[in-house]
Amino acid sequence: MSEPLRIGLLGHGTVGGAFDELVAGRGSAIESAIGRPAEISGVLTTSIGDFDEILAASDVIVELMGGTDTARDHVLSALAAGKPVITANKMLLAQHGAELFEAAERAGVQLRFEAAVAAVVPVIRVVQESFTAVDFTKVSGIVNGTTNFILSEMANTGASYSDVLAKAQELGYAEADPTDDVNGADAAAKMAILARLAFHTPVTLDQVDFEGIESVQPDDLSYAKELGLSLKLLGVAERLPDGITVRVFPCFLYSGHPLSPIEGPFNAVTVEAPEITEVTISGPGAGGLQTAAAVLGDLISVVSGEAQTHSAHNDLPVLSDVSSSFYLHLEVADEPGVLAEVAKILSDSGISVKSVVQRGIDDDARLVMVVHQCPESAFKKATDEIARLESLRSPPRFIRVIEEQFV
Amino acid sequence: MSEPLRIGLLGHGTVGGAFDELVAGRGSAIESAIGRPAEISGVLTTSIGDFDEILAASDVIVELMGGTDTARDHVLSALAAGKPVITANKMLLAQHGAELFEAAERAGVQLRFEAAVAAVVPVIRVVQESFTAVDFTKVSGIVNGTTNFILSEMANTGASYSDVLAKAQELGYAEADPTDDVNGADAAAKMAILARLAFHTPVTLDQVDFEGIESVQPDDLSYAKELGLSLKLLGVAERLPDGITVRVFPCFLYSGHPLSPIEGPFNAVTVEAPEITEVTISGPGAGGLQTAAAVLGDLISVVSGEAQTHSAHNDLPVLSDVSSSFYLHLEVADEPGVLAEVAKILSDSGISVKSVVQRGIDDDARLVMVVHQCPESAFKKATDEIARLESLRSPPRFIRVIEEQFV
Repeated sequence: MSEPLRIGLLGHGTVGGAFDELVAGRGSAIESAIGRPAEISGVLTTSIGDFDEILAASDVIVELMGGTDTARDHVLSALAAGKPVITANKMLLAQHGAELFEAAERAGVQLRFEAAVAAVVPVIRVVQESFTAVDFTKVSGIVNGTTNFILSEMANTGASYSDVLAKAQELGYAEADPTDDVNGADAAAKMAILARLAFHTPVTLDQVDFEGIESVQPDDLSYAKELGLSLKLLGVAERLPDGITVRVFPCFLYSGHPLSPIEGPFNAVTVEAPEITEVTISGPGAGGLQTAAAVLGDLISVVSGEAQTHSAHNDLPVLSDVSSSFYLHLEVADEPGVLAEVAKILSDSGISVKSVVQRGIDDDARLVMVVHQCPESAFKKATDEIARLESLRSPPRFIRVIEEQFV
Repeated sequence: MSEPLRIGLLGHGTVGGAFDELVAGRGSAIESAIGRPAEISGVLTTSIGDFDEILAASDVIVELMGGTDTARDHVLSALAAGKPVITANKMLLAQHGAELFEAAERAGVQLRFEAAVAAVVPVIRVVQESFTAVDFTKVSGIVNGTTNFILSEMANTGASYSDVLAKAQELGYAEADPTDDVNGADAAAKMAILARLAFHTPVTLDQVDFEGIESVQPDDLSYAKELGLSLKLLGVAERLPDGITVRVFPCFLYSGHPLSPIEGPFNAVTVEAPEITEVTISGPGAGGLQTAAAVLGDLISVVSGEAQTHSAHNDLPVLSDVSSSFYLHLEVADEPGVLAEVAKILSDSGISVKSVVQRGIDDDARLVMVVHQCPESAFKKATDEIARLESLRSPPRFIRVIEEQFV
């Protein structure tokens, strides 16, 4: 019998524990895929195990401990020792990706990380392997299941953000401290990783502009329904003439968009390029077992031996001021001339209106409109001006709208 | 500079021509992916080229000629000569897959075929590489863009099958002879390939039960809308306690199903397993450039050197009588007691009714119902009995319904 593949496992929480069980439970399938059995040769947690001993006794290191300090040290040590590494640690890659990929290349070993973005949804492999030589124009993703669950629930029930967040926490879809999920930071880390792969350009977390969903109001969702739109927290990495942009923001999608049917705690990513038109991959974006399955897929590929290169051979500038279409929500005095004033400001700024909904509520009125694509700087200048109108009852609210329709 | 990779290209039609242009146009991206340039070293068509000369002058063979006789000979010769082969030929694989995979394994070279199923939608790679050791329970696919376009158009416009087929031919979504598309044979070939990969069991085209969309009526689609259903030509490969089933049939999906939003000439495949829940991949299922892009992805992987095994190490029986939910459409005399007669036959056969729509039209009535899951043999026996009722005005029509709701 062949020598077993020895796996050093760093971390034994939800994902680490599920991975441990999966390696045992799917033993014969793994053996048939890699031609020899696999075993966990050592486990490191905060209370048990010695990293150096585990490293010496392993053929490959699986990093599922999280955090960016100790994890970084261990991954670098493993790579330097010529051991391939599989990690699910998005923050580690988004903050130290360049250093880690360089270390892997120098050592001539693989660093794989499918589970770091969208868990078992195999977007990393598809971008890197199926579409290696494809000239991507855009990558759009719903890459945070917590926020997608919250937005779906708000849309379906009309409940407030805080009520739905409490429900998500109860159901285990949101953590006790949901900050990184709801403010967009988690999605931003994943988009930094995807942007690097798609555009072969180094992108770090601090270059990603992100906004969260904390200030989304139930009535934004009810107006959206009238306008035929669905609200998502979207990550967008896009190639523009002068560089790329990588952003995360809540936005409305028309029903023809491939990401608009993605509901609940699911993830999905759409990649676009002239050669492929657009391809979408969706599935559960979290869960211990699902994340562990993605790690196992990487493990098998590491042993099957495909050479991976992550070299960022481009160096495109990462831009911020891009064009968008916007939903604009105004509370105004219900008196003649307000719409005219607002329309004039928009028109003077070169911004054209696509649709308007106006509703009176007592003395106030809600003026809700969608404007066509315009530079964000122009839109923000116009809304600053609108904010100074005497007839405004509260500050303008806006949400981006993705105008493209597919299919 | 490194020696270029020499590609022998068999076939220069829509896909072959697009591949030729892609290799030229994406030269620097290919070189950066594989570490050396790539060039087309010879082209074989019915009028130019000599196969043996091309083989001798190539490092890898790309088969885009179609057909199953000459193509089979050339692929076997190439593999025997130790040259990896990439093909987009679904009929070749569905009919001679076992022989070809065996030849590739014997020669120790790769045979890749992403483009044979759903063109650029990377379902082959995901099933084989991301989810190698996953215990699949089901693979469902919309794998024929022509029929999906026709069904979407019929649903959206209310037009008849023949009118929409004519329009599809005009737009280039259906061929002059659309037989293999509309009767389900094309989808059946693709499902045979997917079933083999998912269940590691040899499946050939003649083991796939398939039905087409030729007899779908516009009013089936209008009743479906009332019942909240959308009609798709679905391929389903499923693991059951005693074996597997591989079938293609028109069926209704509820709106929560991940394949229900797939409209127009698109393809999509959903794979299910306990470890992954369900993952869906969608995109354009045809097109010269898109298919060529899938071939290019395979080419790069062949050169990057991952070992591929397609060994069918299981030998599960392929079953036919499975359980389904059904939509049943009856034209009956508009007189008392008909519903009771029909309901009694169904109930005596152990079939329970989920929903009913009844509409009078002059002296006739339409009785449309959805019944819960039951063995197909029981359902067919019951409808044979219903067909003999005096109050029936025309033979019963039925369409399967997929009951599961995801998300």
